[in-house]
Amino acid sequence: MTVNADRLTDLSGTASEDAAPATSSPTPTGPIPVPPSGADRLDVPAVSEALMGKWADARRTARVRAARPELHRPLDVTVAEHRELTYAQMEILAEENVSWLMMPEHLGGPNDNGGNVASFEELVVADPSLQIKAGVQWGLFTSAIVQLGSEEQQKAWVPDAMSLATPGAFAMTEIGHGSDVQALATTATYDAATEEWVLNTPFSAAWKEFLGNAALHAKAATVFARLITEGVDHGVHCFYVPVRDAEGELLPGVRSKDDGPKGGLNGIDNGRLAFDQVRVPRTNLLNRYGDVAADGTYTSPIESPGRRFFTMLGTLVQGRVSLDGSANRASQLALHIAITYATQRRQFTAADPTQETVLMDYQAHLHRLLPKLAATYAGAFAHEQLLQAFDDVFSGREDDPEAREDLETLAAALKPTSTRLALDTIQECREACGGAGFIAENQLVGLHQDLDVYATFEGDNTVLMQLVAKRLLSDYTSELKSVDRAGIGRFIAQRAEVLAKRHTPWARLAQDLSDRGNSRRAFDSMRQSEFQEEMLTARARVKVEEVALSLRSAAKMSPADAATEVNKHQVEMLEAARAHADLVRWRAFTTAIEKLEDEGSRTVLTELRDLFGLTVIQDDLAWFLLGGMISAQRGRQIGSDVRRLLWRLRPHVLDLVAAFDIRPGHVRAPIALGGEKERQDEAAAYFRAQRASSEAPVSEKVLRDREKTARRAQKR
Amino acid sequence: MTVNADRLTDLSGTASEDAAPATSSPTPTGPIPVPPSGADRLDVPAVSEALMGKWADARRTARVRAARPELHRPLDVTVAEHRELTYAQMEILAEENVSWLMMPEHLGGPNDNGGNVASFEELVVADPSLQIKAGVQWGLFTSAIVQLGSEEQQKAWVPDAMSLATPGAFAMTEIGHGSDVQALATTATYDAATEEWVLNTPFSAAWKEFLGNAALHAKAATVFARLITEGVDHGVHCFYVPVRDAEGELLPGVRSKDDGPKGGLNGIDNGRLAFDQVRVPRTNLLNRYGDVAADGTYTSPIESPGRRFFTMLGTLVQGRVSLDGSANRASQLALHIAITYATQRRQFTAADPTQETVLMDYQAHLHRLLPKLAATYAGAFAHEQLLQAFDDVFSGREDDPEAREDLETLAAALKPTSTRLALDTIQECREACGGAGFIAENQLVGLHQDLDVYATFEGDNTVLMQLVAKRLLSDYTSELKSVDRAGIGRFIAQRAEVLAKRHTPWARLAQDLSDRGNSRRAFDSMRQSEFQEEMLTARARVKVEEVALSLRSAAKMSPADAATEVNKHQVEMLEAARAHADLVRWRAFTTAIEKLEDEGSRTVLTELRDLFGLTVIQDDLAWFLLGGMISAQRGRQIGSDVRRLLWRLRPHVLDLVAAFDIRPGHVRAPIALGGEKERQDEAAAYFRAQRASSEAPVSEKVLRDREKTARRAQKR
Repeated sequence: MTVNADRLTDLSGTASEDAAPATSSPTPTGPIPVPPSGADRLDVPAVSEALMGKWADARRTARVRAARPELHRPLDVTVAEHRELTYAQMEILAEENVSWLMMPEHLGGPNDNGGNVASFEELVVADPSLQIKAGVQWGLFTSAIVQLGSEEQQKAWVPDAMSLATPGAFAMTEIGHGSDVQALATTATYDAATEEWVLNTPFSAAWKEFLGNAALHAKAATVFARLITEGVDHGVHCFYVPVRDAEGELLPGVRSKDDGPKGGLNGIDNGRLAFDQVRVPRTNLLNRYGDVAADGTYTSPIESPGRRFFTMLGTLVQGRVSLDGSANRASQLALHIAITYATQRRQFTAADPTQETVLMDYQAHLHRLLPKLAATYAGAFAHEQLLQAFDDVFSGREDDPEAREDLETLAAALKPTSTRLALDTIQECREACGGAGFIAENQLVGLHQDLDVYATFEGDNTVLMQLVAKRLLSDYTSELKSVDRAGIGRFIAQRAEVLAKRHTPWARLAQDLSDRGNSRRAFDSMRQSEFQEEMLTARARVKVEEVALSLRSAAKMSPADAATEVNKHQVEMLEAARAHADLVRWRAFTTAIEKLEDEGSRTVLTELRDLFGLTVIQDDLAWFLLGGMISAQRGRQIGSDVRRLLWRLRPHVLDLVAAFDIRPGHVRAPIALGGEKERQDEAAAYFRAQRASSEAPVSEKVLRDREKTARRAQKR
Repeated sequence: MTVNADRLTDLSGTASEDAAPATSSPTPTGPIPVPPSGADRLDVPAVSEALMGKWADARRTARVRAARPELHRPLDVTVAEHRELTYAQMEILAEENVSWLMMPEHLGGPNDNGGNVASFEELVVADPSLQIKAGVQWGLFTSAIVQLGSEEQQKAWVPDAMSLATPGAFAMTEIGHGSDVQALATTATYDAATEEWVLNTPFSAAWKEFLGNAALHAKAATVFARLITEGVDHGVHCFYVPVRDAEGELLPGVRSKDDGPKGGLNGIDNGRLAFDQVRVPRTNLLNRYGDVAADGTYTSPIESPGRRFFTMLGTLVQGRVSLDGSANRASQLALHIAITYATQRRQFTAADPTQETVLMDYQAHLHRLLPKLAATYAGAFAHEQLLQAFDDVFSGREDDPEAREDLETLAAALKPTSTRLALDTIQECREACGGAGFIAENQLVGLHQDLDVYATFEGDNTVLMQLVAKRLLSDYTSELKSVDRAGIGRFIAQRAEVLAKRHTPWARLAQDLSDRGNSRRAFDSMRQSEFQEEMLTARARVKVEEVALSLRSAAKMSPADAATEVNKHQVEMLEAARAHADLVRWRAFTTAIEKLEDEGSRTVLTELRDLFGLTVIQDDLAWFLLGGMISAQRGRQIGSDVRRLLWRLRPHVLDLVAAFDIRPGHVRAPIALGGEKERQDEAAAYFRAQRASSEAPVSEKVLRDREKTARRAQKR
């Protein structure tokens, strides 16, 4: 590995061609050298508390746990060794009953769903494999029994699931169908003669796939299969199916295949399961939402098969909620590492010819890291809202169909947003740390490898965003429906006209006039909350409207043509969904700031929120310009405003990551634990001593310059 | 892992709520079902040949080699095992003398530098670890001797380096300084008494770091150190230093540390080296560009220490050239896998209620993969130009300072561009393959892990782009210098006025008028080569100009202030460099198309080139709009034009990846080897048989619908 053949910053011809090694000045220099103080400074404990949210206590306990070395990700092990280690770590967690918070009252628990998920999320900084293995065992396998089973079934199976006496797999996804759960092909056919279910995998595409615990550890599985009784297919239901005996041997008719090594999360034994006419008792159908009598008669409290199916699936939203929070925590860890390193690591002499510049003082470095820091703050506050909505529903405090639907939409919007952000952030941090970022002990590469699949499981990100778009469109359509029949046509015509008008460029000439010639005023006006909110709200709204209006012809088409028409707008639909997620995050960030009492924290976080708002607007600036929603004047200003915010926030970067409360034990990367600073001090001491002894060699360049000067002097 | 709680496409309320499993129709359906034929079809062998370029024969041989299983990446091994395997693979390559092409005539070789690099690039699809280990041995360690040593030195050390009798490390980077080679701190001090060099590592930050072969295998190293003789520091030179004895024990004074596990490339034993007053003979200085006589007198054919340094480094440009081609080949492999899978994998019923839709027929899927396919084509043709420029210089056919500088700038522009594209493309492909993309045997995750550091080594991507920006600015300044002194002020004033004028929005009203009301005409006009070229050229030019004009005040500033001023425009400088790289790629793509004889291939590739050009413009659309270079009318059109191109290219996707000539053995991913298709056929046969036997259960939904219909009939 090598080399850049040139120096960075001698554009003005001033940097010495013959590089002097870094000298010893311990005072940092650079454009923004002074650390902030007083009123404009972040109150780190207060902001930290705000980030921890309602379940701060659960998080604190979990953070102590996540710092324990015996729970940490190993660096160089085979897949088999990692699996063994993770299983041993699971036994520790089971011993400590970490998922107890999720237990409902009748099983002796506090039914603290919010606290349980908060606690789970923190585990990601120990080892994502351990987190997801815990998620499979308690968040999916045990939860399926709790959410879909009767009290009797819960009492029969939950205690062993909680204690890890029964390690379990959550057997939903098949090779042939992942996100499209309704199309699953595994069957469970009722045999009234023996009062048993017969589970069967009809073809290879119906093998259950990617199941954590399936390759080795699972003794039972919650299997999603089409319930068939009396010749009728009642759609997908969930069954409790033992798969291995006490010795770990597969039970008759059960087959398993190992998924082998993966891109990450190799502490989990993902694998496949198939069933060859496997029989379980009638009472192994988790029967809260559908049951079969001994004679084979099917009953359900929910008449519509569609609604019944979505109700069952909806009970499992916790997975998405917790991945949203976990992804955000992973981003925080990555930013902690990269920003800490960037404030210590020096490369290239720039502003000071004898002192190299700290990475964080390069505009490009601020530009790659700070917008991600801002988005991570926005994501954290948005997640807290999601978690509270989740807890409201699952505690029963606010459990109605509308609240559930809102919760599901919010989870579907935020999980893809935060997992995408985490992958981008971790990768940016990895690259921002150069070669050191590629060394495993510095954590970033492992974090990316493990988090990678967070974008896929618990609902593929694209599919989830499609879901959000669909909900937004259907809300829009409902609004239309509230208008009377004749009114709809009028309404659509009006909106179309309004949209067309907006397309006249620079309708907002007023923006220009008021801003003209005063970039400071323009800066302040764009930093106004109202401006950002107006822009982001309008964008979220209009993008839906545009798609809806484009699709209005589809209503009259044949199903096939309508689907083709919808597909022609899929990209725009996804953009509308993303605009919605951006608005949700911006609002959550703003609300969180309003709740803070400390003035300094509000000031700094408002600038960070502005950076978030303005970068979101900047990333879609062409759209705003073309819609006439932002004037050319403001549009030209926005890039420099973003850069101005980067420098304003520069003095606060360490405080901003400190508020994440990433502790020793969470961060194990030597580059973020002072190693870099130590090396620099040693080098500086060496050069100091060398200068003192006057034994340092003179550089050829300096000699030549002296000679030149001497010759010139002679000539005069 | 689980689940999406909803169906994708029933916006129009038409998709069955109760999903019917996919039926058996073997004919693909969807918006673009018909494969192309005749005149509009890609001539795959011809395009394949064009992509292979001038060194097609070397590539063909190397592709056969890369398909051999004994050279392939292992999937589940420890770091130690992978290193051992890679070393054994290196012995095979050495045995077969794969790098023979690079040998100069006086060492009995053909001095075929282009062929050697082309051949090297193809190795990436076998195992990137093997590729980079070969690169360390022959591309860096051996090349340093060839490029920087005398013929005598070459004859002494090159044969053992080529045969792997002397595995070597390339000891340039230090912990403290990576891209900033001039600031290296290791010293080599001449001791005239013994006629020896004394190599020394003065402090821990000066340890040589990230060196392939350093942890275990290296017996010697080409060490970059500050040459000090007679009290003068002549700057960084390269020394041949034995580091381990025949038994592999470290020689006295040499220390080594293992970098341990990394994010990828774990077949390579990266590590650190330090020297504690290690002595080597005077003749171990590689002395082509600087030498020391027995008495300690320093001489060099290049007087300026700065120019001497850059000349030495410039001889090593081959690393960047070959990474550019390798990254491109890795993108091709990823696209081959993801696009093959996307044309077989079906999910969700959409256009056809009984047949699920192939992933490739979703607009969002086209939108995530095709622009990357287009950019990969552009990158391949741009790389071929780079490789020819490299060969022209290193064959001596066109070796002058200007050609070298152009070559170095082109390499500095393309290496970051293609490595960035590779990482983004591989990640996109991984996610586009869903859970299957995360399984190691499907190659994508390993490819991402290994390619990750390609963005950092051989010059960090950001630093290289900075270099390009600097060159562009200095060219611009030279242009100014050709104007007389008084003229410069006038020129700058003029340009500033021109730029300000451009900022009057919609100067190009004419665009609007000519396009208005005819989106087809607008589509054709934007697809015109001239339009894209004009836009991309102007963008590359104006972005440089804008930075140069912003910086004109810096010329009069103190060095420190000037550096601060430059730093305030770093992000814009990087954008200017990227705009330059985009233009280079677009032109290379266009030139390559012009050379093709087959009309069909030209048609299809022109559409692909248009997709590349228009997506580049679209990604920076706000800039074009704000500059008044693209009208609002055209700006609004561009998104739909891009989408139109996606559908036009849809029928050609398999041909387009076929031209990459990714062979069995290169692709080892089961998902791209027909496994998916096989499973679908099996499922379809099952449903066919079930229907034939009329034993299939009826769905509850269908029953309910029938009942409803019956009730309605009764009422009538």
